[in-house]
Amino acid sequence: MKILVSNDDGIDSLGISVLVKSLKQIADVTVVAPQYEQSAVGHAITMKIPLRVTPYFKNGDFFGYAVDGTPADCVKMGIRNIMKEPPDLVISGINYGSNTAINIIYSGTVSAAREAAIMDVPAIAISITNHTTKEFNYAAKLAKMLAIKLMNNKLPLGTLLNVNVPDVPEEKIAGIVLTKQGKSKWDDIYEQRQDPYARDYYWLTGKMFEVDTDADIDQVAIRNNYVSVTPIHFDLTDYETFKKMKSWHVESLMNEKEV
Amino acid sequence: MKILVSNDDGIDSLGISVLVKSLKQIADVTVVAPQYEQSAVGHAITMKIPLRVTPYFKNGDFFGYAVDGTPADCVKMGIRNIMKEPPDLVISGINYGSNTAINIIYSGTVSAAREAAIMDVPAIAISITNHTTKEFNYAAKLAKMLAIKLMNNKLPLGTLLNVNVPDVPEEKIAGIVLTKQGKSKWDDIYEQRQDPYARDYYWLTGKMFEVDTDADIDQVAIRNNYVSVTPIHFDLTDYETFKKMKSWHVESLMNEKEV
Repeated sequence: MKILVSNDDGIDSLGISVLVKSLKQIADVTVVAPQYEQSAVGHAITMKIPLRVTPYFKNGDFFGYAVDGTPADCVKMGIRNIMKEPPDLVISGINYGSNTAINIIYSGTVSAAREAAIMDVPAIAISITNHTTKEFNYAAKLAKMLAIKLMNNKLPLGTLLNVNVPDVPEEKIAGIVLTKQGKSKWDDIYEQRQDPYARDYYWLTGKMFEVDTDADIDQVAIRNNYVSVTPIHFDLTDYETFKKMKSWHVESLMNEKEV
Repeated sequence: MKILVSNDDGIDSLGISVLVKSLKQIADVTVVAPQYEQSAVGHAITMKIPLRVTPYFKNGDFFGYAVDGTPADCVKMGIRNIMKEPPDLVISGINYGSNTAINIIYSGTVSAAREAAIMDVPAIAISITNHTTKEFNYAAKLAKMLAIKLMNNKLPLGTLLNVNVPDVPEEKIAGIVLTKQGKSKWDDIYEQRQDPYARDYYWLTGKMFEVDTDADIDQVAIRNNYVSVTPIHFDLTDYETFKKMKSWHVESLMNEKEV
């Protein structure tokens, strides 16, 4: 099995090293990851400037490639240029911080896995709900078990798995649950400050506004110390609204009397 | 009616000026747009560095605000800090270049409208399939008519409209059609070049690999000179796969015999 590994915290992060070590037990692993941290970049790709690829020896951990771009760039570059043939699987992570509910939209970790799914390669994004932990072993083992699972149980083309691991010791993990994306989102606040020259600047802050309650929602699973596994895709069509909008008659929009 | 306008081509672009002029006929318009071009940034948000907001007088066109961040940042900043109360509608555009099929995932234009939908504000992203046109009048009028339509026909919370206008003179537009997101995607190529110091660099290029054929697909509508109107949302759950994955028994993943 050939696995391409990427992330959004950057090739220097601890999470990617622990992940690679675990996956090497079952696969040939190629690492192509951002040279610099790329959190919350969403599904950005680099088109207006060229990319550079730097062979990268991460002492004692792996030999890989650092790309001065986004997570999605790394996966495109890995599959199109660096690997001789497409991988069987792409895994992105292990990310510092959960990617549940609305965070899936902003996540660089998820975008790397989504880029793989766009390229018809099965993919997993894996995150841990902690921004400072050094304990990635359980998540890394889970990624390995899921990789094996995915070889025997095919995902449809275009579908990826978004996995979140709660921030508790392994023995406190309540279980693993199949979930849907939650609707909880950020109550944003821009904190206004002044620089030394009396000019205003704004830091984005805020807190998660929790609205999810069902046990099979990613956000709730994590809160209850379960590992959350969500199948997601990139067909954004709202089919229900599509049906309802037939009655809007958009075809005659420009014939309507102007205001 | 109060409308917040943003884009991803930057506050200096022609498309946003023509859009604002048209919308001013029916609404109070506030403009909060990126200071610099932000194409293909996906749904990036700025968290690690602060943002600055610069009042911006675009001579003869409008008074607005330039934010040194992404399209999603602009919408957050506009709704949370600049406008006294939330707008009735957010419109993002008019973008240079179509945002159909896979491009919806990469689009900064769509991300601005999606950020509004996340904040429970109805939203429209509007793009024109041309990267150099100076002819935005039809698209701007269409945006105005859609804005009126949206006041009388409510979208569900979390749903936005992704609108694409073909690159033909107004009299050659075949009509307006309600569509779904296509599956056409890029066949990427990284063009390898050498800099003057004999170091390699890579430009992303490629062409759209067209797989869509049905008349109610965004990509096909545009090809046939129709305006495409697609309702999209940000629930990425693949519900069909969710059901099928019940048989995977992920709950016992870690109990399975290790390889």
